[in-house]
Amino acid sequence: MHIEFSRRAQALTSSAIREILKVTERPEVISFAGGLPAPESFPTDALARASVRVFARMAYTALQYGPTEGYAPLREWIAARHGTDPARVVVTTGSQQGLDLLGKVLIDPGSTVLVETPTYLGALQAFSLYEPAFRALPSDDDGPLPAALDESTAGACFLYAQPNFQNPTGRRMPVARRADLVRRAQERGLLIVEDDPYGELAYDGERLPTLRSLNPDGVAYLGSFSKILAPGLRLGYLIAPPALAAKFVQAKQAADLHTPSLTQVLAYESVRDGLLDEQIERVRARYAAQCGAMLDALARHMPAGVQWNRPRGGMFIWLTLPAGLDAGALLAEAVARNVAYVPGAAFYAGPQEANTLRLSFATVPPVRIEQGVAVLAGLFAEALAGVRFV
Amino acid sequence: MHIEFSRRAQALTSSAIREILKVTERPEVISFAGGLPAPESFPTDALARASVRVFARMAYTALQYGPTEGYAPLREWIAARHGTDPARVVVTTGSQQGLDLLGKVLIDPGSTVLVETPTYLGALQAFSLYEPAFRALPSDDDGPLPAALDESTAGACFLYAQPNFQNPTGRRMPVARRADLVRRAQERGLLIVEDDPYGELAYDGERLPTLRSLNPDGVAYLGSFSKILAPGLRLGYLIAPPALAAKFVQAKQAADLHTPSLTQVLAYESVRDGLLDEQIERVRARYAAQCGAMLDALARHMPAGVQWNRPRGGMFIWLTLPAGLDAGALLAEAVARNVAYVPGAAFYAGPQEANTLRLSFATVPPVRIEQGVAVLAGLFAEALAGVRFV
Repeated sequence: MHIEFSRRAQALTSSAIREILKVTERPEVISFAGGLPAPESFPTDALARASVRVFARMAYTALQYGPTEGYAPLREWIAARHGTDPARVVVTTGSQQGLDLLGKVLIDPGSTVLVETPTYLGALQAFSLYEPAFRALPSDDDGPLPAALDESTAGACFLYAQPNFQNPTGRRMPVARRADLVRRAQERGLLIVEDDPYGELAYDGERLPTLRSLNPDGVAYLGSFSKILAPGLRLGYLIAPPALAAKFVQAKQAADLHTPSLTQVLAYESVRDGLLDEQIERVRARYAAQCGAMLDALARHMPAGVQWNRPRGGMFIWLTLPAGLDAGALLAEAVARNVAYVPGAAFYAGPQEANTLRLSFATVPPVRIEQGVAVLAGLFAEALAGVRFV
Repeated sequence: MHIEFSRRAQALTSSAIREILKVTERPEVISFAGGLPAPESFPTDALARASVRVFARMAYTALQYGPTEGYAPLREWIAARHGTDPARVVVTTGSQQGLDLLGKVLIDPGSTVLVETPTYLGALQAFSLYEPAFRALPSDDDGPLPAALDESTAGACFLYAQPNFQNPTGRRMPVARRADLVRRAQERGLLIVEDDPYGELAYDGERLPTLRSLNPDGVAYLGSFSKILAPGLRLGYLIAPPALAAKFVQAKQAADLHTPSLTQVLAYESVRDGLLDEQIERVRARYAAQCGAMLDALARHMPAGVQWNRPRGGMFIWLTLPAGLDAGALLAEAVARNVAYVPGAAFYAGPQEANTLRLSFATVPPVRIEQGVAVLAGLFAEALAGVRFV
């Protein structure tokens, strides 16, 4: 039988990149492609102990239907951590669901959605289903340029940004840029969607003010437990102005009724006694070491003309190859040499810069980072020397 | 700041009924309103034991990101139970997510969606966000009339049906009706969405053939663990023709990346050794007894002119009051007398029959069922006698 898909669904396609990257699960491949956190960092013992407590004392709550807004003690814990009212907090099935539901309640076909250059691919995918017109804001190493919010962006649906250790670039928005961006958005009545999965991952522990804290009624904030507890729980949250939170809850009810009770109760029982802060310290230390190892290896091996940033947190480094090299075209050869990365082109809502790529160091031990970077450096040097790969 | 919602979101409203029913959490209220399974039926000990195994042996799998399609052993288990290929199976975050994602990939604004009369409210809510034109098929005690699939329904997006112990009516489609409906849909190239949360809950254990089994390439089947294991896990699944399953997976990736790994691994570890069949027996016996108690109480107490069906499975009985009585208008007075139900009007996509209501016996012990039905019978008798409630 022929099944006719909706117009929005016809736009969904499988990416060639994803097909290439499927092979990177082979153990001999050094993968800088994943956005996965390091599994060694999961607080497995603490979660196991919490799980025993949950089944002994809170089994009915963990196994029964629950409120769409989320498990009340977890919402209160999140609110306290962010200095806000639990009524503004909605627990989501990962922060990806937050992106999907914000798209659902905010985007009409043709609405303008403002994004960074480059921007997070998962957000582009989630929003795309609601058929917006993306507009990529000019951006520099500090994030989007506030001056880009002018008459030409009037009437936009919202601005989507990751101020902390952005995926894919690893860049962080400085305090002055945050203030400037929020002020200009506020003046223009422009909603900001602040996506903050990596906010806790500053290697020196410094937390810059969230955009939300600068204008709580003009920012919808998305947080996540995926990078600081465990992604397999699929737990994130929205903090939003009350009217938006209420509409979001209605949409969530139609989307999955509520996030699993079990994972919410388990996460709350795991973090209530302060586990998370120790856990975050461990994750920061691990990623700082691995980031350092990759920066050292890049400096040692990369040929002249290759540029990269020096992230102060998060999981990613962004590489820019000399103009003329195409990171997407070189990926197959890199994978043939058992090293994987993500070409940068897919992260652009506007014109793609084909000579960029994203490296993740999160799951790779330092000695393998050194080996993998050396292989990539050799490949890029050959490409620069004019070798063609088929 | 003023936030402009999308057109689809503007259609989302809070229901007055839901507000009234919020008070039914008071312990003195006998609630026939919930669609919740009985928490005493949850296999808590088995899940607790499985949870210990999961954290001891499979913690990384349970805590890390996983495939969008779902945990492979769970997909294989589902496929084996339904006699199909795991490639057709996608695990969902509750079957509510299945409804949402099918709407997303199939419904364009204005598309015709065919539904039963009455039909499941949660499906209407999920599909509504994609702005279809609902068309309610004439239906009888056996489900929708196959003859209603004629020239006038050509070009419809799909037919949505719950053949087993439908929510809200509790009715089951007989075998001949299933065959007739599937044949007519197949002749017309009409996709059927078969929603089957209660399929395992026939009190005598009899399973009628699923619509899917009658035409696997023309039916998208939604299954659920909510009523037979525990709803707090939020675990459901789609079984669909390969092209539809593939598109559904793309939409799911944008919606929540994947269903929590932990709940999937836990469910698989709980059911792999045959727990589910024992568990289903226990649930069936409990609901059969409570359904019987409610049918007895209805026969004893209800005034002449009130009609109801005699379900052979599931969680619901459907009442029809004499014409002129409005179950929605009577709800506030019922709740004031500490008994709650769900008025039937919200379950109609077409003209509403205000004199209908849904009673759930799933969470109420027999002695309270008897008390609650007596109170409702008294109220309806007063209403029939012309007493007005304000």
